[in-house]
Amino acid sequence: MTTNSKIVVVGSVAVDWVITPKAEREESVGGAAVFFAMAAAPFCSTQLVGVIGDDFPAPAIADLEAAGVDLAGLERAEGKTFRWKGRYHANMNSRDTLETHLNVFESFSPKLPESYQDADFLFLANIQPTLQLDVLEQMGGRPKLVGLDTMNLWIDIATDDLIKVLGRVDVLTINEEEALQLSGETNLVVAARKIQGMGPKTLVIKRGEYGALCFCEDGTQFAAPALPLENVVDPTGAGDSFAGGFMGHLARTGDLSTPNVRKAVIWGSTMASFCVEGFSYDTVRGLSREDAQARYDRFVELTRF
Amino acid sequence: MTTNSKIVVVGSVAVDWVITPKAEREESVGGAAVFFAMAAAPFCSTQLVGVIGDDFPAPAIADLEAAGVDLAGLERAEGKTFRWKGRYHANMNSRDTLETHLNVFESFSPKLPESYQDADFLFLANIQPTLQLDVLEQMGGRPKLVGLDTMNLWIDIATDDLIKVLGRVDVLTINEEEALQLSGETNLVVAARKIQGMGPKTLVIKRGEYGALCFCEDGTQFAAPALPLENVVDPTGAGDSFAGGFMGHLARTGDLSTPNVRKAVIWGSTMASFCVEGFSYDTVRGLSREDAQARYDRFVELTRF
Repeated sequence: MTTNSKIVVVGSVAVDWVITPKAEREESVGGAAVFFAMAAAPFCSTQLVGVIGDDFPAPAIADLEAAGVDLAGLERAEGKTFRWKGRYHANMNSRDTLETHLNVFESFSPKLPESYQDADFLFLANIQPTLQLDVLEQMGGRPKLVGLDTMNLWIDIATDDLIKVLGRVDVLTINEEEALQLSGETNLVVAARKIQGMGPKTLVIKRGEYGALCFCEDGTQFAAPALPLENVVDPTGAGDSFAGGFMGHLARTGDLSTPNVRKAVIWGSTMASFCVEGFSYDTVRGLSREDAQARYDRFVELTRF
Repeated sequence: MTTNSKIVVVGSVAVDWVITPKAEREESVGGAAVFFAMAAAPFCSTQLVGVIGDDFPAPAIADLEAAGVDLAGLERAEGKTFRWKGRYHANMNSRDTLETHLNVFESFSPKLPESYQDADFLFLANIQPTLQLDVLEQMGGRPKLVGLDTMNLWIDIATDDLIKVLGRVDVLTINEEEALQLSGETNLVVAARKIQGMGPKTLVIKRGEYGALCFCEDGTQFAAPALPLENVVDPTGAGDSFAGGFMGHLARTGDLSTPNVRKAVIWGSTMASFCVEGFSYDTVRGLSREDAQARYDRFVELTRF
């Protein structure tokens, strides 16, 4: 069996207004699907499903296309693009949401082009669980690997739908606090076991500056640090870039064994480390294979004993 | 040159009252020097300097002696032992101090027995910087390696003395928040460089459940995860147990190269992981070499990719 090593990603496409202690960008293109796609595209062919309004910056379309992202599934609707405004605290690890405007995202109903439906890899980035289910059902058959991300909002207000879609995915990437919230536990190991019991055999807990902890399908655990960075410009999109690098490596290699999943976690960490060094996808776009490999190698140095 | 592979540790000896969400122990023997010594003793000969009052539990003396800890430098003073009372929050990672009674510790003036003065390894656990300096000066010559720990209190009220002693140590183990406080920085990499400039060529940042980050003498960085544990009983003493395992491995091997310092960080993490699984030093005492090695090997599995 050959692998159709392309990834479909569905999620938000956004224009963010990002304020950090040192700088600010008022029209910063973002959204989970964009960050994911820009991080996955260097690894394999990537197809995006999302919606934008008539205010979406044209250069960003060009950037995505230049990176090789297939935009056949990007709907253009009347109105404004989804917009988020947030301010990071001095430590760059926590932030306040100042404004959220769903705009065209509010009535978004994802439609998968036919050319997407045979993909072997599907990532359901953070959106309403019913839309995630909807996309999963539009796939031609069960993909080889389905990944999912979610957030506290859906755990709060759409628990049943989330549980339903979780039962049909292979990999869940989720923040530490959200893992505890979803499981109702205070201990992460206990929480992980409970969540794996809900469906996803592989669980990747994202811990921001502390890295990621992967509960693997074979029962082992894998801890990856985040790269200690001197210059964190904008953490927005780090988790989605992680997911992009993670899924990208799996799709490129077609190898879903635990040893390769561990490498995928490091590729995810690698892409996240680039992401946070600039606004938007500035530092991920145009990344050479050599620069990416050199940074992957820094994780080797960082962890070997 | 042969290595006199023994460690002198000076620091608090305490009776703690520990309250956690699940359990409580009213007379829990602790203190930085005790946790350090119990974790270092399996590696090499360990000599303790500290003070106790007439209320100190006799069984704890027997425990320390059974572990092989040299107590020639343990002073017995009239009055009560240093006592601390604290309550851990639901996540077991943060805590409130409810009471602190210095008691005999208030007028403590450490005296090094002659039999301690030729040790090649010295650990200045968390006490007043002037006392740390005092102990350093009582050593027969410059030890091969001097380690130090400190806390927010001394950074606040004894900055100058702390800076003075920092100028004379090789290794600093310190909590993440304290590293930022000491350096006045918000970025950990920048903070680390600044602190290394104060004296300690090796800097180990302790991050609790997230592990440790070591800024090595050769300019490399080493990240060690904490072992994901299902049953955290009492985190008190984890940092001191870490330091004990870390220094213990270095003293046993006599090898201060960066590759061996990295292994020492894992031995520190190993001892810390045992420590938190029980009250006091319950789970460190009587640990077999095989059990310790088996846990060290779990760190190999946890980090290999």
